Amino acid sequence: MESFLIEHFRKIVPLDESEAAYIASHFTYKKFKKHQFVVQEGAPVPNSFLVAKGSLKSYHTDDNGKEHILQFGFENWWITDFYAHSNETPATINVDCMEDSELYCLSLQDREKLCAELHKVARFFLTKANNGYLAQQQRILSLLNSNARERYEQLLLLYPGILNKVPKQLIAAYLGVSRETLSRL
Amino acid sequence: MESFLIEHFRKIVPLDESEAAYIASHFTYKKFKKHQFVVQEGAPVPNSFLVAKGSLKSYHTDDNGKEHILQFGFENWWITDFYAHSNETPATINVDCMEDSELYCLSLQDREKLCAELHKVARFFLTKANNGYLAQQQRILSLLNSNARERYEQLLLLYPGILNKVPKQLIAAYLGVSRETLSRL
Repeated sequence: MESFLIEHFRKIVPLDESEAAYIASHFTYKKFKKHQFVVQEGAPVPNSFLVAKGSLKSYHTDDNGKEHILQFGFENWWITDFYAHSNETPATINVDCMEDSELYCLSLQDREKLCAELHKVARFFLTKANNGYLAQQQRILSLLNSNARERYEQLLLLYPGILNKVPKQLIAAYLGVSRETLSRL
Repeated sequence: MESFLIEHFRKIVPLDESEAAYIASHFTYKKFKKHQFVVQEGAPVPNSFLVAKGSLKSYHTDDNGKEHILQFGFENWWITDFYAHSNETPATINVDCMEDSELYCLSLQDREKLCAELHKVARFFLTKANNGYLAQQQRILSLLNSNARERYEQLLLLYPGILNKVPKQLIAAYLGVSRETLSRL
């Protein structure tokens, strides 16, 4: 499975064999079961996760027990509570597996070490951070526009094939609409 | 005013004098009038802007002519249509000056050149992109939670002193609430 990790990096930066091996040596490969938590509200968040197989969701549960979905994570996506992870504070969201999943785990310390040692790794994460920022900017605009159909279309663009992978009630929780509204879209 | 630019970078990465001068040589310093556009919907977005003086807002106007504010930019903030800028596509939002403003302008080509040449600059923008990502994550959660009071409190945390700087109708447009709702907060 190491080749998955290296191919993931090579989509953005060229790496020779020794660089690739060095980078890979900082990741831990782990398997998780459906419904298992990888980040739990209130707990520390030492790792970020690259999804090699399976799918996850990050979400916040409000005071009324309602789930609000921040992000889905499919193959080749990164997921964690990025805020808590970067600031070394307790998680404010949960991340759990929607199906059995296999993840590459990277600690904050190793991420910073790799970025400091290898210019290419810093550039890789800069590209990832920029792309994440841009996707979120589009999402904020769509939430402010509060046009449910536009939000729905944007979701399909961001996550092609999601309708076959994710239950309807989770898609509604991502869009911030009711199941009934979703059915009309 | 060059020292402002250098101090801005040095908050995140150490720079010696020659590095500082080299970085500064890629920026253009420009003055803009209140209400002047720095990014206009439909036009190319060659530059991103670091605010040295004044204040700006980025916003999208919906089909009903309603303004939705994506971001405010005060001193030491970066602002542009980051999506259009990075993808070299026409702007989908406007950015204009809420008062007379002075900005450091950086082209995409020069930004990429600096990031490729100087590891420190890549790390500077990585930190900025991460911080921007995290602020947006909080904003998405607050929009999904759709609790106007929480959104209001988060705004005050993100932009201390904003109530003295920005007209109430613009704050309402940022929060996605009516003027009447804002008055109650």
